Amino acid sequence: MNCVFCSIINRKTPAEIIYEDSLVISFLDIRPFNFGHTLVVPKHHSEDLLSVPEEYLSRLFLKVQDISGAVVRGLGAAGFNVLSNNGPAAGQTVFHCHIHIIPRFDTDPFKFKMNLKKYNDGEMRLTGDKIRLFLPPQEK
Amino acid sequence: MNCVFCSIINRKTPAEIIYEDSLVISFLDIRPFNFGHTLVVPKHHSEDLLSVPEEYLSRLFLKVQDISGAVVRGLGAAGFNVLSNNGPAAGQTVFHCHIHIIPRFDTDPFKFKMNLKKYNDGEMRLTGDKIRLFLPPQEK
Repeated sequence: MNCVFCSIINRKTPAEIIYEDSLVISFLDIRPFNFGHTLVVPKHHSEDLLSVPEEYLSRLFLKVQDISGAVVRGLGAAGFNVLSNNGPAAGQTVFHCHIHIIPRFDTDPFKFKMNLKKYNDGEMRLTGDKIRLFLPPQEK
Repeated sequence: MNCVFCSIINRKTPAEIIYEDSLVISFLDIRPFNFGHTLVVPKHHSEDLLSVPEEYLSRLFLKVQDISGAVVRGLGAAGFNVLSNNGPAAGQTVFHCHIHIIPRFDTDPFKFKMNLKKYNDGEMRLTGDKIRLFLPPQEK
């Protein structure tokens, strides 16, 4: 399997590693939105977020939280985005699940703001119905 | 406290609720990027992702995974983005932590692609040092 993130995990490709434990690894994105743009990656090769096993998922976002805090404090950021792209239509280019942490500053020239849509009468309910149909049973 | 998401949780503001349990609630964003754009919200009032208690954090992302799958299947999406904006500099406008699930289609006119930066020699290591300084001890 020719996966660049597996190759980083296996130390065959170098990276600026921020954090590592038995379940996740975190390293700097080599083409950052802003300096300090960090990726957090489950060591299990999962193509996208949907296929990450639960054990890895819990640790992954626990570490996204910790590392986001460190990115903000270490770089004096004003805020941060957490982003996961899943599927080519969503901009995913490496098909091993990864979470972006992007430090943001008041001086940033870019925004994630885009044209927002509006639901007409009844469309929200209909859309909700389509989604609820595929949800697993409710937790307590 | 005047928080619109707490008001939805307390049933004082209506919403198209997709899922609810004791720790999280999920409902449609009323101004979606695409129809089916869904928010997943911890019931604990945390201003941003950094302050979500661990119990809520685990459930939150377990449900982000489940609900993302339902959004994709329910709407026949080609992919999805998961996004969390933290701080005004990052585009946060409601100061109760929330995770966006944005269904994406091959026909979408918009991309999250932006101008990427490049590190000069030594800058990656220096940036990594700044972040690692603020990380808690490593898990096993």
